[in-house]
Amino acid sequence: MTSKSPDSQLMEKIVSLCKRRGFIFQSSEIYGGLNGLWDYGPLGVELKRNLKNYWWQVTVHERDDVIGMDGSILTHPAVLKASGHVEGFSDPMIDCRTCKAHFRADQLVEKKGIKQCPNCGGKDLTAPRQFNLMFETHVGAATDESSIAYLRPETAQSIFVQFKNILEVSRKKLPFGIAQIGKAFRNEINPRNFTFRSREFEQMEIEYFCRAEQGMELLEYWKEERLTFYEKIGIPRTKLHVLTVPDNERAFYSKGTYDIEYDFPFGRQELEGVAYRTDYDLSQHQKASGKSLEYFDEETKQRFVPHVVEPSAGVDRTVLALICEAYSEDQAPDEKGKMETRIVLRFHPRMAPIKCGVFPLLKNNSQLVAKAKEIVSLLRPHMTVFYDESGAIGRRYRRQDEVGTPFGVTVDFETLGEKDAARRDTVTLRDRDSMKQERVAIQDLPAILRDRLA
Amino acid sequence: MTSKSPDSQLMEKIVSLCKRRGFIFQSSEIYGGLNGLWDYGPLGVELKRNLKNYWWQVTVHERDDVIGMDGSILTHPAVLKASGHVEGFSDPMIDCRTCKAHFRADQLVEKKGIKQCPNCGGKDLTAPRQFNLMFETHVGAATDESSIAYLRPETAQSIFVQFKNILEVSRKKLPFGIAQIGKAFRNEINPRNFTFRSREFEQMEIEYFCRAEQGMELLEYWKEERLTFYEKIGIPRTKLHVLTVPDNERAFYSKGTYDIEYDFPFGRQELEGVAYRTDYDLSQHQKASGKSLEYFDEETKQRFVPHVVEPSAGVDRTVLALICEAYSEDQAPDEKGKMETRIVLRFHPRMAPIKCGVFPLLKNNSQLVAKAKEIVSLLRPHMTVFYDESGAIGRRYRRQDEVGTPFGVTVDFETLGEKDAARRDTVTLRDRDSMKQERVAIQDLPAILRDRLA
Repeated sequence: MTSKSPDSQLMEKIVSLCKRRGFIFQSSEIYGGLNGLWDYGPLGVELKRNLKNYWWQVTVHERDDVIGMDGSILTHPAVLKASGHVEGFSDPMIDCRTCKAHFRADQLVEKKGIKQCPNCGGKDLTAPRQFNLMFETHVGAATDESSIAYLRPETAQSIFVQFKNILEVSRKKLPFGIAQIGKAFRNEINPRNFTFRSREFEQMEIEYFCRAEQGMELLEYWKEERLTFYEKIGIPRTKLHVLTVPDNERAFYSKGTYDIEYDFPFGRQELEGVAYRTDYDLSQHQKASGKSLEYFDEETKQRFVPHVVEPSAGVDRTVLALICEAYSEDQAPDEKGKMETRIVLRFHPRMAPIKCGVFPLLKNNSQLVAKAKEIVSLLRPHMTVFYDESGAIGRRYRRQDEVGTPFGVTVDFETLGEKDAARRDTVTLRDRDSMKQERVAIQDLPAILRDRLA
Repeated sequence: MTSKSPDSQLMEKIVSLCKRRGFIFQSSEIYGGLNGLWDYGPLGVELKRNLKNYWWQVTVHERDDVIGMDGSILTHPAVLKASGHVEGFSDPMIDCRTCKAHFRADQLVEKKGIKQCPNCGGKDLTAPRQFNLMFETHVGAATDESSIAYLRPETAQSIFVQFKNILEVSRKKLPFGIAQIGKAFRNEINPRNFTFRSREFEQMEIEYFCRAEQGMELLEYWKEERLTFYEKIGIPRTKLHVLTVPDNERAFYSKGTYDIEYDFPFGRQELEGVAYRTDYDLSQHQKASGKSLEYFDEETKQRFVPHVVEPSAGVDRTVLALICEAYSEDQAPDEKGKMETRIVLRFHPRMAPIKCGVFPLLKNNSQLVAKAKEIVSLLRPHMTVFYDESGAIGRRYRRQDEVGTPFGVTVDFETLGEKDAARRDTVTLRDRDSMKQERVAIQDLPAILRDRLA
């Protein structure tokens, strides 16, 4: 047995923490699980919500030039024929005739030089053949060709197909964007790297429509905007890399594509693609549907099919990057002053699932408990709060450190004002990262915390 | 041709408004559409977000006893075998041998006494047979029995299947709930009533776990909680009806079920079911998976399978109810004082997609425009704002009335302080429902509006 690399040990710790603390579970786990499918637990769903809501806020609500939509997952086959997915959305697949396992040919080449089955070691492999990654189902009572529908392989196509409707109702002028967050599905041959390459995932996409001559400039603009976004959610620029996709690897219709990559423990991998897709998609749908998808310019009196720049981010990949980036271990003293390893998720406060822990020093003192519960009620309209009364206070801090809660408030005897009336109704406010504690008045807590969370 | 009833005329107006103003479009419309599938446009997605976020806030964030999750849509067949869906989640279907149309037998009986095809009038109908409503697909490279997975027909089962994981990570004590918002899919034989009965829809579900002896009491509690919720989003109690589902119509495992119904223009229909499901689901999954789904009571030292009360609401149905409830017409003077019919969506401010319109009186006056844009920047961190400078001011008010924007701010020459310095930096604030206008200082706008929106 070869020893594990530090990076793969780190990834194991992260996967284990995700399950242990309720970020991510395997889907249908009690039935043996489904490969490439994941469920978000109580903390995972909050982290994912924070990410999606922040993206929507900065992308849609804070901008005059972007509006939202939310399309259905089940998609008419004509849409995906026109987009090229029915014909060409496939990966090369190789089967092992001995153990019946399937492999993505390009990944097999990486690993084994395509000569041997990674599963059983057998050498009786098929030639590579194209395997379409779309999930198909039947809508209605018939189960023939006529009733096929697909689970959308990307959210983008719903935007293109509704372009004209949205243009008409919104009265927007070019350039403008349509944004969408939603699920997409790909029947990956080999799902891997935890939630990174999964069969069901969420996308946050903008299709930003413009004139042909604005395309290259807007490609640069959106690359920078999106890099700034990742920095604002706590992923430092030093861990992000912009790959200029070379001419021979870009989709044939794209005039320029950047991949924004992050240094995951399992390697440098794509978080987001920013692609200048020209007028390819709208032109395809115009041709196939027979409906005009042109834009009418009131000033120049011209009609034309707009071009589009697409920043397309993966929700689950970004959640995973947030967790990987946040994961750290340091040394901290336990209750008795002995140093121990502390696991901390150093989430940006904006992303943290729980913003503040509230702890009565002792659970069997009704005054401490009552005061702590008052503080919960005081803070709850402003942020997510977690009340915890069980175990030694140091253990309670550790539990919150491990899930990335940036602040902790402890109600102690000073809060009750028993020794020093001047300290009545003050609490300790603890910072997750520095572990420093300060004494603050309860009434100032909402303002102090809101300030630090902004 | 029979004349249309006022209710069906009203429904036509609502459907037309939804498309005209970008609430709801037919999915894949430019390709002829897909029956029973819908896309939400720029205003629809905001309305839906407001509903879902408010539900999450009151259900998860404001409560100590409910936590969230977000499970995958693709579901292991073993889950849905154990739950009874593979065997029994079906509707009786009748086919017309003449025109090949399919009908839900129970709806055919309602309409035509089962003797005649509503489509072609033909009388050669098949006997009713059971049609399973689950969409199925294949996961992985094989396309046989072994690779079947289903699109979940309800979000509830992901909660039951993750019950033990979530119990362990959250350390919750009974009674407590797990909440989820997510998509579910049913291959309805006859989708109808706009988005009310569609093939892809979102659910907001709580599974509230408890001891057997608490079940009936919690059923009553949740019925009341959920009625209060609908009132808080603007659906008056007089339009809501609680149907006690009779013994012979309840699922065999349920000890009590209420349907919360709303008076839609097309009839009284279910918004939400509140069901006491006993320990049926967890027991089924425990048996089928061989994994213990018991709860250990630390005080009594007992182990048992918890019972559950389920409030299960439809997102799309509630969105439709919000629109139907908000729709109204009144008489209001146009620019020249002539009375005209005004369409107004009287959304509760909490639900309104846009909270405030901002209008410079004239678009060709740079000072008015600059001031209006300042106000947009001032308000935007607090609420969704829509800036509109085109057309007569009366028309701009009407456009916002029609999409339910509760407030409108107009920047006029008084704002610039040209005649009366005391009125400098004041604007008119218009109320959608009363159409009354008041003069307020710009600096007071955020506080005034936040107060009225709360």
